[in-house]
Amino acid sequence: MMRSDKHKTLVIPGPVEVRPEILDAQTEWMIGHRSTAFAELFARLQGKLKKVFLTDSRVIVIGASGTGLWEGASRNCIRDDRKALHLVGGAFSERWAEVSKANGKQVDVIAVDWGKAHTPEMVDAALKAADQPYDAVCLVHNETSTGVINPVKDIAAVVRAHNDETLVLVDSVSGFLGAEIRPDEWGLDFVLTSSQKAFGLPPGLAFASCSDRVLARARQIPYRGYYFDLIEIDASGQKNNTPSTPPISLMFAADKQLDAILAEGLESRWARHTAMRDITGGWALNREMGLFAQEGYRSPTVTAVANTRGFDVDAMAKFMGGKGFSMDKGYGKIKSKTFRIAHMADMQVTVLEEILSGLDEFLATV
Amino acid sequence: MMRSDKHKTLVIPGPVEVRPEILDAQTEWMIGHRSTAFAELFARLQGKLKKVFLTDSRVIVIGASGTGLWEGASRNCIRDDRKALHLVGGAFSERWAEVSKANGKQVDVIAVDWGKAHTPEMVDAALKAADQPYDAVCLVHNETSTGVINPVKDIAAVVRAHNDETLVLVDSVSGFLGAEIRPDEWGLDFVLTSSQKAFGLPPGLAFASCSDRVLARARQIPYRGYYFDLIEIDASGQKNNTPSTPPISLMFAADKQLDAILAEGLESRWARHTAMRDITGGWALNREMGLFAQEGYRSPTVTAVANTRGFDVDAMAKFMGGKGFSMDKGYGKIKSKTFRIAHMADMQVTVLEEILSGLDEFLATV
Repeated sequence: MMRSDKHKTLVIPGPVEVRPEILDAQTEWMIGHRSTAFAELFARLQGKLKKVFLTDSRVIVIGASGTGLWEGASRNCIRDDRKALHLVGGAFSERWAEVSKANGKQVDVIAVDWGKAHTPEMVDAALKAADQPYDAVCLVHNETSTGVINPVKDIAAVVRAHNDETLVLVDSVSGFLGAEIRPDEWGLDFVLTSSQKAFGLPPGLAFASCSDRVLARARQIPYRGYYFDLIEIDASGQKNNTPSTPPISLMFAADKQLDAILAEGLESRWARHTAMRDITGGWALNREMGLFAQEGYRSPTVTAVANTRGFDVDAMAKFMGGKGFSMDKGYGKIKSKTFRIAHMADMQVTVLEEILSGLDEFLATV
Repeated sequence: MMRSDKHKTLVIPGPVEVRPEILDAQTEWMIGHRSTAFAELFARLQGKLKKVFLTDSRVIVIGASGTGLWEGASRNCIRDDRKALHLVGGAFSERWAEVSKANGKQVDVIAVDWGKAHTPEMVDAALKAADQPYDAVCLVHNETSTGVINPVKDIAAVVRAHNDETLVLVDSVSGFLGAEIRPDEWGLDFVLTSSQKAFGLPPGLAFASCSDRVLARARQIPYRGYYFDLIEIDASGQKNNTPSTPPISLMFAADKQLDAILAEGLESRWARHTAMRDITGGWALNREMGLFAQEGYRSPTVTAVANTRGFDVDAMAKFMGGKGFSMDKGYGKIKSKTFRIAHMADMQVTVLEEILSGLDEFLATV
């Protein structure tokens, strides 16, 4: 085994700690992507993915990070003479809006302060004020930089009530499989995620549920590109295949991890994450620290602790490194003013308690 | 170990057989992509990649197939009011031209019959006939569908002599590390490859050497997108980082495989492939079969055997499957009329001889 014994357990919000069994699943002998064995793997994955995405449509699987599927969503869903409405309130929702612009798309933004959630009322007002219907509303389910979870279900209901032309595109990169999301039931057209967050896989794969409405829109857009062209991807997918060579070893790992996820059950998995959120939030408040995310919108997968005690976050990370944990130090403009505790993927309460107990030891020194 | 004992050795032209040590390298514990350990991995890879790409500039590393870097090359290098010249003569060179068009780019084509090479003279004539300088000439080094290797060095010399504005963009997906290519010395601006061909890695990573001229061109193009934006990728790369989360386990595998490649030496590796080409070509001609690729332009990494004996290619593949080999049956419009023997990546002459001897047993039955 190549695995180093100097390893520190990852407490960062992605890439997350991946279980040895899942790492090992990557070592299956390589197979051709035009073989029967691959078609079987693809079909098996598709069946399991539809279960965890709670969708009857299809789940896109592609070798890329979630960033790639931001680009795919924006290029396939926003026509050149229409606009998208991006809900922005953290590093990742900001960047998705930038990605749409970098593809020449017209973008309006509803910006909230970092740490705040978007509300259905804000979206309703923006839709009412618009000159013409938006082609898409783009929002982030779980903003990894701030630990905010947005009320996706209620926002989608507002969009759906308003105009049937507008697609609802959701980044659930760090939410998916850790926080409840129901694409079909909530009327979400595109829900994208990547492998290395609450999914508990190595990075390199991105996934998205994709409605028929998305494909109908894509057909109206001439220059969608190729690598993230959802029409091509769907056409190949119907034959249990992919337009270009996919990352097969990562798909073996996904196949195994999906078995574990289905065995745990979605509701149990969400509940485990919610319990870890409550433990972490309670711990921080009891230690005279704040929570950066607005009350009522705190993420089950990642907590941004407001460093109101003003300690040296680098020193904290170093101390915790000595205990075998790789800690986060905050992201972007709130680095050091916050630090994040990721409690996602296959992390168990017992491990979280070890982490918090280590942090208590550190706090005793400051 | 998850590795199945029912495995058949891959003789297909990608994904290729990956050695167990390289598969195992994927199982190292996950690390954060903003950690020091990752920056060290990135820097280590970059150093080795510059050696195998024979370049002093930079080597792009991204989680995608080679198709993704086709898109990246076309989007970053072709301005909207200029054209690209695509050299087309097989399934993959055709598709790259389609990818440029799917991104709204203006494309001229020099088409040759499948199995034929492009010559410097053809390119010279096209450059002379053009109204204005092409922004790029896009060509495929080693056309995987036909087994043709193109005279990239001589074509590039023609382009360079003609106009200094025109970038030379090369797909070396199935050539790289199996056939000689010298980006800096030959004046190639962008040479892309993917992991699962002559590189001998699992699929999911793409690589490209990238000249300063490419970045200067990209700066003139406003809507390059984000995932394959070479300016962003280069800016992160200078900090030993990536704009979005990369496929870390595949990068561990690449790190190990590059050590083996450098230990073998590029010249030795090219010579081993050339020897396998000669053995395979000689074998086919001695068996009253033809070679699909034009004489003088036969690929060191993959031979397309012309099935002039008209046997049932499915039956051949089934027979060889019984001997533990997964065979190719031809690609696209020449499927069954040809079949390909890939002799690339870490395949050794001894294994190739086993394959050819198995094929002899099959031929004795038809």
